[in-house]
Amino acid sequence: MFDRLYVVGIGLIGGSVALAARAAGLCTSVIGADVDPANLDLAQQGKVIDSAVRWVAGDSVPSAVAPFTVGDRDVVCLAIPVGQTEAVLRQLAPGWNANALYTDAGSTKATVIEAARAVFGRVPANFIPAHPVAGAEQSGVAAACADLFQHRRVLVTPVLANSLELVEAACAFWRGMGALVETMDATHHDHVLAATSHVPHLLAFALVDLLGRRDETVDVFRYAAGGFRDFTRIASSDPVMWRDICLANHGEIAAWLRQYQAELGQLVELLEQQDGAALFELFVGAREARQRFLNLLEGAS
Amino acid sequence: MFDRLYVVGIGLIGGSVALAARAAGLCTSVIGADVDPANLDLAQQGKVIDSAVRWVAGDSVPSAVAPFTVGDRDVVCLAIPVGQTEAVLRQLAPGWNANALYTDAGSTKATVIEAARAVFGRVPANFIPAHPVAGAEQSGVAAACADLFQHRRVLVTPVLANSLELVEAACAFWRGMGALVETMDATHHDHVLAATSHVPHLLAFALVDLLGRRDETVDVFRYAAGGFRDFTRIASSDPVMWRDICLANHGEIAAWLRQYQAELGQLVELLEQQDGAALFELFVGAREARQRFLNLLEGAS
Repeated sequence: MFDRLYVVGIGLIGGSVALAARAAGLCTSVIGADVDPANLDLAQQGKVIDSAVRWVAGDSVPSAVAPFTVGDRDVVCLAIPVGQTEAVLRQLAPGWNANALYTDAGSTKATVIEAARAVFGRVPANFIPAHPVAGAEQSGVAAACADLFQHRRVLVTPVLANSLELVEAACAFWRGMGALVETMDATHHDHVLAATSHVPHLLAFALVDLLGRRDETVDVFRYAAGGFRDFTRIASSDPVMWRDICLANHGEIAAWLRQYQAELGQLVELLEQQDGAALFELFVGAREARQRFLNLLEGAS
Repeated sequence: MFDRLYVVGIGLIGGSVALAARAAGLCTSVIGADVDPANLDLAQQGKVIDSAVRWVAGDSVPSAVAPFTVGDRDVVCLAIPVGQTEAVLRQLAPGWNANALYTDAGSTKATVIEAARAVFGRVPANFIPAHPVAGAEQSGVAAACADLFQHRRVLVTPVLANSLELVEAACAFWRGMGALVETMDATHHDHVLAATSHVPHLLAFALVDLLGRRDETVDVFRYAAGGFRDFTRIASSDPVMWRDICLANHGEIAAWLRQYQAELGQLVELLEQQDGAALFELFVGAREARQRFLNLLEGAS
């Protein structure tokens, strides 16, 4: 389907793209590019990639030098914290191949599109933004696996400047790894994902941070049950990735968090008024809403 | 070890006590008591209990009539929403056997102790409050299982009026079901459990309630990932049980929630100021704190 696959950023997501694409026969070989040589060694030793390009980030290289040569039938996938998108595109620009497919795996989409505009003046017809809604609290290439995208959604957020043919190629690329691909508007994507992914992560980070700073921390953690472990699982996610998501989508996230604060304020009032009937109603409603969510999930897979 | 085991309230916890105690040979027979005849039928058909006592709640029975006869070597375990403790103790009072062991499985402890004081004037020497820190988002006897308490903590919160010998018997009862038993002060219990169990549940209920009431709910739920499912798992918990926990421990829960609101307020400020360094620091701290929690959990099991 494709010739070479270049994966820029060999972490959990990039490594899983490499493994999944090769397992599905989507490409003839996989080249990993990363700023961290230890990461590349690990990826090569684990046969996650066939060969490695040591990426030299930032000002130390002339921006006119392309890090690798992209052929007409190659695909380049960026799997990096979204805050690095502009710098990486800037380094790819001198060697940009207008016939190849470029896509990304960033968790926010509006700033990724802005980054492309900043570098190229307009979004290249063959840069198709995408977001695999999959992950784990582990990070790094050691946690990569070939079936990470199986039955998971990949949200492709094309722009008007994109070639329809290459949007379809990007969808086929992600679908080839087992994903359920849907296209949607980038702004809507960032609004919806703020609610279902970014806000839950921040709520978990905030709770663990609050409890972790208290004198009685050891006791608090000592007597926590499995529910706490599940609730806070996502607080173990990669801090760089989440800093970048927060910066990229700060408006949507802050707006949801303010609504959530208002909801919590009402809850505190119900507690203080000891309003059992209203609390019961809220819990019943939440349980029903979550059941609708589970039904949707089952329908999807 | 004991003769008969009476379990009052045959739900997830009560049913699991019945199964676990019999599997461990802690008693010769198990009698289930419940207000819901369908529940008792289910428990008998599933061989969770050997025989059933139909519990008639409230004012319809004279409070001088004991629902069952408790022998000197019997154990009675209350596994009911904590708000029902006083009414149930009031019905047990006329048949109270000062030689038997009485314990409970309520998620809060201070109001359970108050309920005993309200009924008996002082906490009976043989009523030993306990809280198995175990559960699932499923409720009802159908979800009961014999290994629910294996390697889980049970927090026993004795009072000065308790007989030391029977405190030890209660610890042995719960330990016999595979639990890691610890004793602690009821007030400290309610403070700590508010942070690690009650607050996470309320945060999850609040998020699902907020998202479930929005017009775009379907989209929001449709694109949610596994992280959301884990985070909100506990929002499917039993609404009656959680209403009662909230009413029983409203002070501690509201105090933690107010601190949490302040923490969220700071987070919203960091987002609005786009303070990447401070966000990064918070996420690193939270990840480290959670790792300490996981290390403690592993040390425990």
